[in-house]
Amino acid sequence: MTTGSWIAVDAMGGDEGLAVMLAGVAEARRRYDGTHFFLVGDEARIAEGLKKHPNLTANSEIVHAPDVIRGDEKPGAALRRAKTTSMGVAIDLVKQGRAAAAVSSGNTGALMAMAKLSLRTMKGIDRPALAGLMPSLGKHDTVVLDLGANTECDARNLEEFAIMGAAYARTMLDLKSPKVALLNIGTEDMKGTDEIREAAAALRAATHLPLTFEGFIEGDKLSRGDVDVIVCDGFSGNVALKTAEGTARFVADLLRIAFSSSVRSKIGFLISRPATALLRDRLDPNNHNGAVFLGLNGLVVKSHGGANETGVANAIAVAAKSVRDDLATKIAEDLQHFAQTMPAETAEAAA
Amino acid sequence: MTTGSWIAVDAMGGDEGLAVMLAGVAEARRRYDGTHFFLVGDEARIAEGLKKHPNLTANSEIVHAPDVIRGDEKPGAALRRAKTTSMGVAIDLVKQGRAAAAVSSGNTGALMAMAKLSLRTMKGIDRPALAGLMPSLGKHDTVVLDLGANTECDARNLEEFAIMGAAYARTMLDLKSPKVALLNIGTEDMKGTDEIREAAAALRAATHLPLTFEGFIEGDKLSRGDVDVIVCDGFSGNVALKTAEGTARFVADLLRIAFSSSVRSKIGFLISRPATALLRDRLDPNNHNGAVFLGLNGLVVKSHGGANETGVANAIAVAAKSVRDDLATKIAEDLQHFAQTMPAETAEAAA
Repeated sequence: MTTGSWIAVDAMGGDEGLAVMLAGVAEARRRYDGTHFFLVGDEARIAEGLKKHPNLTANSEIVHAPDVIRGDEKPGAALRRAKTTSMGVAIDLVKQGRAAAAVSSGNTGALMAMAKLSLRTMKGIDRPALAGLMPSLGKHDTVVLDLGANTECDARNLEEFAIMGAAYARTMLDLKSPKVALLNIGTEDMKGTDEIREAAAALRAATHLPLTFEGFIEGDKLSRGDVDVIVCDGFSGNVALKTAEGTARFVADLLRIAFSSSVRSKIGFLISRPATALLRDRLDPNNHNGAVFLGLNGLVVKSHGGANETGVANAIAVAAKSVRDDLATKIAEDLQHFAQTMPAETAEAAA
Repeated sequence: MTTGSWIAVDAMGGDEGLAVMLAGVAEARRRYDGTHFFLVGDEARIAEGLKKHPNLTANSEIVHAPDVIRGDEKPGAALRRAKTTSMGVAIDLVKQGRAAAAVSSGNTGALMAMAKLSLRTMKGIDRPALAGLMPSLGKHDTVVLDLGANTECDARNLEEFAIMGAAYARTMLDLKSPKVALLNIGTEDMKGTDEIREAAAALRAATHLPLTFEGFIEGDKLSRGDVDVIVCDGFSGNVALKTAEGTARFVADLLRIAFSSSVRSKIGFLISRPATALLRDRLDPNNHNGAVFLGLNGLVVKSHGGANETGVANAIAVAAKSVRDDLATKIAEDLQHFAQTMPAETAEAAA
């Protein structure tokens, strides 16, 4: 048993229940043949559920945890109960080095707090960030971070997010030198906060890193696919990602209302159904599922609470790819290169 | 000539040129019969353009201004040239009391800077805010502020934005007690920054104001129409509005690609064209055009740079309605009521 090929799955977290989680793991197991899974949660229920997935049974091990973190539980309360919960035990398997990554569809705040406390921040990183994937008009999704781990960020945080996000894009999107931009409210040099302008200056100077810094990007360009990584503080990132999700749903709702507004448009809808199905598929959050906590000593992936089987499998794919490509080492190397370009006192502070 | 019925229009600003501006004013003139217009800019060109709009000629007066603010001009440079530009002269007509409002499709940063310097902030207001309209699934648009006038805001700023936004919704949307929410990254009390939590506490306590405080709202709910006014700092507001615009365009692009992906879907598209036209109409930014600077001693409305004739008319409608309903007095009254509920030292500081 090698550490690299084991992923710990919180089988009890999420809104869709154990059966969907197990089906998702089974799908991921088919995609990533060498991967093994710790299925963490109620032993009897997991054993019962596994009967439907004989192929997964051979590649997994049940780890019992009697409790579950509730969706509305506050991070502080969750931390105190960590040791007996499926979420806490899954993270602990990463800490012990038995699993290379943990995946959970449970409470984001609790997962973030537990992962941070248990795994600690990587050397050279001030704050970890949550990085997600957003659909785009380009050939692949766009990486966006931070999505809410840090409501306020200084320039140094944003610079680290850029480096971690670029390393993540190299892994997930198979890019050599991802295009990175800072989210701002204009593209001119003088726009935005001091933090953003300072981070831009530092990233512009760091020309030897495996990333191409593209300056600022505005909210209306996020889905264009012009850049591969979008960097922002956790508040704006959360607002941007959720606004994009909400707007996509809003337009789909309007479309549904429009299509059912007359017999003629209903007929048109039936004929063009393959086209609208294509659209729905492209926008389905399950096809972009899996947000990864970057900057911790160990990999933790957050799957959407309402993810279906495919969504869960995609979140596990994020973990499997990151493990396979050794994302953590990439980040550590790039950070060291970045530190070397900075003025002496800043580099010391970061070491 | 009464002040209340005159609106100053920067006829030269915007990307679409003088002809579109004049056509927009002419359309607004048909909607608001009692309103008169100062058409500010190149006298000879405006006079020539007016030949197409005899009805407008009778209700307008040309005010000559030889220069135009460029779209990429920095606010500082624009301020130095204010006196000879169509934008600056339009604002000055408001300052002199000759016009009740100014409308411009020009450079936002320059307009903001000129309006602030020339008209000054209302008594009791710390910082003015830019309020816009966003399409929603509800019966009417949603007011969103600030859209970028203030990149960073404290609790007091957010509270003032809530009051000004509610007064604006009473005017523009004809509501008695608009539902107001603060944009946040979660709905629980402990979510977000200190500033947001503090503003929420103050607004919750101000129960006698003509608004209903609904707590926090997340990005994915902005278009639902559950609330009438969404309050946030200018950075998040700008990100949210632009992300919503960009995502709507992104989904429309995907739809177009999907509809042209096969002969079958092309036929479906042709049949359902009335339905998709309905959708396009609902999302057209021209139908939600006109962002107003709230909190100044005088009304200034920003029209989108690329607005068409209908868009310009809608921006003028924002000005006309705000003048007719005496928005400024509503804001001043509500501010005074709000100040009375605050602890003595805060109320003093605000006075």
